[in-house]
Amino acid sequence: MEIKVVKKVLDANNEIAMQNRKMFSENKVFTVNMMSSPGSGKTSILEQTLSMITPEIKPAVIVGDICTANDALRIAATGTPSVQINTDEFGGDCHIGAQFIKKAAAELDIENIDLLIIENIGNLVCPAEFDMGENLRVVVLSVTEGEDKPVKYPLMFRVCDAVLLNKTDLLPHLDYKIEETLKNIKMINHEIPVFQMSAKTGEGFQGWMDWLYLLL
Amino acid sequence: MEIKVVKKVLDANNEIAMQNRKMFSENKVFTVNMMSSPGSGKTSILEQTLSMITPEIKPAVIVGDICTANDALRIAATGTPSVQINTDEFGGDCHIGAQFIKKAAAELDIENIDLLIIENIGNLVCPAEFDMGENLRVVVLSVTEGEDKPVKYPLMFRVCDAVLLNKTDLLPHLDYKIEETLKNIKMINHEIPVFQMSAKTGEGFQGWMDWLYLLL
Repeated sequence: MEIKVVKKVLDANNEIAMQNRKMFSENKVFTVNMMSSPGSGKTSILEQTLSMITPEIKPAVIVGDICTANDALRIAATGTPSVQINTDEFGGDCHIGAQFIKKAAAELDIENIDLLIIENIGNLVCPAEFDMGENLRVVVLSVTEGEDKPVKYPLMFRVCDAVLLNKTDLLPHLDYKIEETLKNIKMINHEIPVFQMSAKTGEGFQGWMDWLYLLL
Repeated sequence: MEIKVVKKVLDANNEIAMQNRKMFSENKVFTVNMMSSPGSGKTSILEQTLSMITPEIKPAVIVGDICTANDALRIAATGTPSVQINTDEFGGDCHIGAQFIKKAAAELDIENIDLLIIENIGNLVCPAEFDMGENLRVVVLSVTEGEDKPVKYPLMFRVCDAVLLNKTDLLPHLDYKIEETLKNIKMINHEIPVFQMSAKTGEGFQGWMDWLYLLL
């Protein structure tokens, strides 16, 4: 177990995040940090999002996981350049730090990328604390996770710019009150837009894509 | 931001965990640490489990969340003594440390408890690293989270003694290969028992209860 001083780790992270932000800005790369619990459907949302991106926008993806390259393989199958980060080489970090993004970005043809989406490690807690130099943060929440997650994990919903409420195709099979979820989200972050969607059927993606395009 | 040295934090945690273990042992309390992603159904599993516990066993529950007392209220409604821990008073910790358990246990009538279940914070990463002095660790995985979580979050599946594979009532509505999940679990932890169950219908709970009773 390496000895680390947490404050120093955060300071060092923020400094590299600033360098990343400058590098992305100079190369006109718009970056999105996508976060969620494990299994809420980040990769499926990415697959659907990438399939709807028009040819004038060049996307790329950085995928973070503790172990495996499963998700990067799924992204690569869409024809989008992708880099996998595995944090198990670094003690199984529970989030992606800015230094990982710096390293991964160096493996991409950054001058020819317009939109870089970072799929963070599945964790609704720690990733919210780490800036990576991104422009936008989105949190994916699936309807199978219950209504109260926004109030139980408030920091995540406070730091994010949009909520993607996924797996709506399962609503007929669940005892789930979507109005309660929306009320809970609003309690934590009054202004945040919520896009209800199903990565399985593609339902609801147009609203999310339109909103994303306004920012690009 | 408080300055902490991570190694010292872990050492201090382990020391208190040892004290907890001694205290539980002296009072003949069997303790279970229940961990999972957010929204995989820990509280629903607890409600069903508590409803099936026979009168000679006196249960109690310690519930951990960053914020809210929602889960403790649900447990209290079953008539089981429960204590809520909120880590947001301590910077929003992403796991329950041994010191929280020591404090929470002091609020319970520990001499008259046979089975203490600790519902950890929803997080498939960090809680795996923190001993609280428990006898048994179980991880809840819901079938809506996909097949590859055991290989993506290996430490959790390595440190646990059983997997509760929840929400099987949703299987007819998912593209989910349960055999692949079982294969992935086996790859990480060859011997671990897997109990397929639905906290919604009660299906599959008898196997889990029988196994738990063998240990009490």
